[in-house]
Amino acid sequence: MQIARVIGNVVATQKMAKFEGAPLLLVQPLNPDDTPRGQVLLAVDSVGAGITERVLVVLEGRAASEALGKKGAPVDAAIVGIIDRIDLG
Amino acid sequence: MQIARVIGNVVATQKMAKFEGAPLLLVQPLNPDDTPRGQVLLAVDSVGAGITERVLVVLEGRAASEALGKKGAPVDAAIVGIIDRIDLG
Amino acid sequence: MQIARVIGNVVATQKMAKFEGAPLLLVQPLNPDDTPRGQVLLAVDSVGAGITERVLVVLEGRAASEALGKKGAPVDAAIVGIIDRIDLG
Amino acid sequence: MQIARVIGNVVATQKMAKFEGAPLLLVQPLNPDDTPRGQVLLAVDSVGAGITERVLVVLEGRAASEALGKKGAPVDAAIVGIIDRIDLG
Amino acid sequence: MQIARVIGNVVATQKMAKFEGAPLLLVQPLNPDDTPRGQVLLAVDSVGAGITERVLVVLEGRAASEALGKKGAPVDAAIVGIIDRIDLG
Repeated sequence: MQIARVIGNVVATQKMAKFEGAPLLLVQPLNPDDTPRGQVLLAVDSVGAGITERVLVVLEGRAASEALGKKGAPVDAAIVGIIDRIDLG
Repeated sequence: MQIARVIGNVVATQKMAKFEGAPLLLVQPLNPDDTPRGQVLLAVDSVGAGITERVLVVLEGRAASEALGKKGAPVDAAIVGIIDRIDLG
Repeated sequence: MQIARVIGNVVATQKMAKFEGAPLLLVQPLNPDDTPRGQVLLAVDSVGAGITERVLVVLEGRAASEALGKKGAPVDAAIVGIIDRIDLG
Repeated sequence: MQIARVIGNVVATQKMAKFEGAPLLLVQPLNPDDTPRGQVLLAVDSVGAGITERVLVVLEGRAASEALGKKGAPVDAAIVGIIDRIDLG
Repeated sequence: MQIARVIGNVVATQKMAKFEGAPLLLVQPLNPDDTPRGQVLLAVDSVGAGITERVLVVLEGRAASEALGKKGAPVDAAIVGIIDRIDLG
């Protein structure tokens, strides 16, 4: 899983039926110290995340589809949690 | 999921049976600001995308196969939506 | 599979139901000689690993979900063993 | 999917049973303009491709296994088509 | 699939039940000309490979689990063959 921050959203009207209703958010992956790393990704949201929130992202189709609660949804990334705290031991 | 632009197509007559009929498009991945990033990919089209359109691409076999509506199709990338608007919050 | 060291943990209260109870640990991938390599990842723990322990990590959704013992858990990385010894032959 | 050229083959007598009979070819991934990109890969052949032919390769286990027509074959890449023409629009 | 050489092994006593008995080997990926490429990986062995042997490695959970003959084994890489000869055509 990746730590990421929600930075925007994407509107795609012509989507597949199994896809409809799922918000598509732009997320910037982060290092544990909150600095950005790598490239911005698109993920479906399953927890109601908002802009600027720090979230937990899964990057795999089966997992993302399960997160969406729609088996067979053609997705490969999903937001599955909102992060409260990171402890570096 | 990735944002990408359709830039061409590929003709492969000797394809597997489960594959036939699915258009194979060349897509250039894009950053949210529309600049190209990374390398051109091949994706099967499930939404009727045209050259120069900005599309939503899933990069995973299970998801791509579901998009195609053919379980067991030997594919690993698919176009699943046409993008109307990107909002950076 | 990857060799990694546990370096912290993440608290995410707003998680999906299938996810609850699974500790989320920050792990630093390692080379066989114990030097760090690549970026810190998040993995669910299935073996009770502690901070500073050297662990075995699977990086794939199906495998991670099996490790957690919850089919359909939206996860893509899991700690599946604690490493005792590395022999370079 | 990737565009690639067949450049050689690999002989591995001690293979798993589910694997036997499937030719293992070395393929060089290509850019749309036919220049090589990235590293040489091994893929099982499901379409009867020959040395120097330009082929369509899927890089995912489920898809590759489907291409081979053997569910549960332990493979992660397969040649699924022979490319006739690439049109850059 | 990747060509790799076995260079060591890992002992992890506290492993998951579905995992027990499977040797965990360290493998160095190779180019077709036998030069090393990329980073050392961990793979479960399903063919009885020994130190210094050149092997065929699958890098995907479903495929690795099938190689191990244990559905649901939490693994993401497996040795599935021993390489006898590489022919560059």
